[in-house]
Amino acid sequence: MIGSGNVSTHLAAALKNAGHRIVQVYSPNMGHASLLAYHVGAEATDDISLIMADTDLFIIAVKDDAIEAVAKQLVLHERLIVHTSGATELQVLMQATANAGVFYPLQTFSKDKELDFRTVPLCIEGANEAITKQLIELGQTISNNIYRVDSAQRKILHLSAVFACNFPNYLYYVAQKILAQHQLDFNLLRPLIMETAVKVQQQFPAVVQTGPAVRNDRQTIAAHLQLLDDNVFLQTLYQLLSEGVMKMDKN
Amino acid sequence: MIGSGNVSTHLAAALKNAGHRIVQVYSPNMGHASLLAYHVGAEATDDISLIMADTDLFIIAVKDDAIEAVAKQLVLHERLIVHTSGATELQVLMQATANAGVFYPLQTFSKDKELDFRTVPLCIEGANEAITKQLIELGQTISNNIYRVDSAQRKILHLSAVFACNFPNYLYYVAQKILAQHQLDFNLLRPLIMETAVKVQQQFPAVVQTGPAVRNDRQTIAAHLQLLDDNVFLQTLYQLLSEGVMKMDKN
Repeated sequence: MIGSGNVSTHLAAALKNAGHRIVQVYSPNMGHASLLAYHVGAEATDDISLIMADTDLFIIAVKDDAIEAVAKQLVLHERLIVHTSGATELQVLMQATANAGVFYPLQTFSKDKELDFRTVPLCIEGANEAITKQLIELGQTISNNIYRVDSAQRKILHLSAVFACNFPNYLYYVAQKILAQHQLDFNLLRPLIMETAVKVQQQFPAVVQTGPAVRNDRQTIAAHLQLLDDNVFLQTLYQLLSEGVMKMDKN
Repeated sequence: MIGSGNVSTHLAAALKNAGHRIVQVYSPNMGHASLLAYHVGAEATDDISLIMADTDLFIIAVKDDAIEAVAKQLVLHERLIVHTSGATELQVLMQATANAGVFYPLQTFSKDKELDFRTVPLCIEGANEAITKQLIELGQTISNNIYRVDSAQRKILHLSAVFACNFPNYLYYVAQKILAQHQLDFNLLRPLIMETAVKVQQQFPAVVQTGPAVRNDRQTIAAHLQLLDDNVFLQTLYQLLSEGVMKMDKN
């Protein structure tokens, strides 16, 4: 495992639990490397020149802009190298080696929040058909949702994931801050947040849209904008999102 | 029950299931009134002058801008009247009668999606302490989450609910549309949407924020904006939300 962040932590645990051996964890931060290595029974290192070649696979789970440099240092070991990024083309690895692939778990991971890895969609791409098949087989040991996704599709997936996850979570934050300003408890909103996500598990979002904008309730929208008149940024955001809801294509 | 929309449908069912009798359902649309009345064993009417006084409580669950007019027509029956709106002050009812309250279920309801009403936060306000107590008692028969919330707080709650529910659902829609344009399956995103909501059930959103904006990954943000260059609206939205994430207060 190259990297010891959220993705690496969850992926290493899932692989370990499926019976695979994690040989070594590398991180430039030795504390992080040691902690993850400890949890998965691996060795830890913060020196990339000390990475061991005694493995079938290098999994790069680092920041996007570090993938290329890391891959170039790993290539001398002549092992299969994959990255786990939604935003990075396979081509970035293939500049270093033809023995490359992508193993992208489409989920939001936090180190201290467990989740069921078998439900995580794994998006797989190999530099050739043999690698793809090998990665699919590996993927099936930890997830029930395996998808073949090429680099162009993966970028679209990653973009859509930002809209489906990172931005909604930011809006939860906005809601929580508005409540906190008025000494109201975030627990009041938690069931609402949950139900909103549950609804789209079976249906399409356009079908279950609720709220003043989809009802074109101009009076309520105006009242909300007035409540936000100490915060031009949130006013702008409210207006833009309401405009989007109003233009929603219901079909 | 005055109204036969999403809120009325779920509230009537919850009350009925808790052993209360729904006397009558009014809607200007007789088909809608009849359907809900049928499900809860009530009579239906589309003529507001035929509303029966043989009840302890009128529950107004209609559009915000219709509440005042409906209340004025109900007041001659001299019964307790409540509305179920997050956006409307109690004062709107009190112009018609002092025998008034608010019974606001803070949840997103769709007629054809069941949910566990016992988890729904019920925000209660009475024109006096006796009414408040009476409404709290009624509320406790259908929900475990009863909150006393005054009109000013309720407006804040409603505003925050738009950010926590209506806007995230719109963003799910955006994500689904982006996928559909590229022949990708919305099922790929459903576990991600779910997990994002699950995470904030225990933690605060700022703690679990992920994605390129919170990492200040300018390269990925630029690549996403380029993918959106056929849609200026979504580009603007992406930029504004990313800006918000970057300015997030982690404490």
